Amino acid sequence: MKLYYATGTCALASHIALEEAGAQYSTVKLNFATREQYSPEYLAINPKGRVPALVTDRGILTETPAMLAYIAQRFPKARLAPVDDPFGFAEVQAFNSYLCSTVHVAHAHRMRGTRWVDDPTAIEALKRKVPETVGACFELIENKMIRGPWVMGDTYTICDPYLFTIANWMESDSVDPARFAKVKAHRDRMAERPAVRKVLAAEKG
Amino acid sequence: MKLYYATGTCALASHIALEEAGAQYSTVKLNFATREQYSPEYLAINPKGRVPALVTDRGILTETPAMLAYIAQRFPKARLAPVDDPFGFAEVQAFNSYLCSTVHVAHAHRMRGTRWVDDPTAIEALKRKVPETVGACFELIENKMIRGPWVMGDTYTICDPYLFTIANWMESDSVDPARFAKVKAHRDRMAERPAVRKVLAAEKG
Repeated sequence: MKLYYATGTCALASHIALEEAGAQYSTVKLNFATREQYSPEYLAINPKGRVPALVTDRGILTETPAMLAYIAQRFPKARLAPVDDPFGFAEVQAFNSYLCSTVHVAHAHRMRGTRWVDDPTAIEALKRKVPETVGACFELIENKMIRGPWVMGDTYTICDPYLFTIANWMESDSVDPARFAKVKAHRDRMAERPAVRKVLAAEKG
Repeated sequence: MKLYYATGTCALASHIALEEAGAQYSTVKLNFATREQYSPEYLAINPKGRVPALVTDRGILTETPAMLAYIAQRFPKARLAPVDDPFGFAEVQAFNSYLCSTVHVAHAHRMRGTRWVDDPTAIEALKRKVPETVGACFELIENKMIRGPWVMGDTYTICDPYLFTIANWMESDSVDPARFAKVKAHRDRMAERPAVRKVLAAEKG
């Protein structure tokens, strides 16, 4: 398998999951500064011009929640999700879907306002609300969603690398992690995992 | 099972899927005009104050892609997704994740701009770009994603009620369905299904 990623993006979640699963994979780093994600070569892989994308022996996958579920289901021995328990698997997917469609989207209004508006003053107005909207998401995660020590409780799942990835953006969104004790402790716990250290070092290198 | 929904929302996708699966379920209709989704009673069910929510014998599920995957996995005889094929299931989930995190989000900037910005002129600016952003999503779906006759090809899956639900919003977003022959044909094909007719009638009633 081949993972296309860029540093500082949500592709980190799938990168960590592949490592935790013990998968055989290689990586290709795209340079967003030179708009490499819009090159004809990459658009042939992912016409959305986004990361991550995962090339498999069956075809190409995109969208973080789908890729994480794929990794969990493809490497069942790693036990990254209760894939044979419809309710348990759905709880995992509901958490990841919230990260993807609400938390990531709230965050994206700081740097990617041009996706949704043209007017420069409106783009600035979008940026101003990000600390409030991202903060509200983490309040909900802290108070209603994270069970601890891992997202789903005692068992590490594909929710954990995804939360870790997005929780790492808090400071850049002017949200103080000290407000969210459980999320902060989760982030620290994640940073100690060998797979996470290895992947962070690889993405920096 | 009990489905909480409101008319004109993405809850329609799960409602149709429950019907197609032959599930035993009841429904509760929330009135968004009286902000019933923010009542203490409903917030106890779904602290996000959104629909859909599905009460099951194991607990409560939210988030459309997760609920659709749950319905497919819980009712395997209905064959609403290739749940035992990691790649096939991931393709289904990638499509649904795109609907949820990109297409629905683009659409939401028309009516729900206050989620991301406070300034009234910025809210108006967000509305103006919706025909362009939603149109671009459907261009991608038309040209790169939908296989036909159903989203995944010959087999009807949980992608179909979800696409149908969101494609029904095109006119209200000032996007002309005539631009997208495959999506339009899919919408017409969906509207003829007995389960879809039954659910649409129930939501109106």
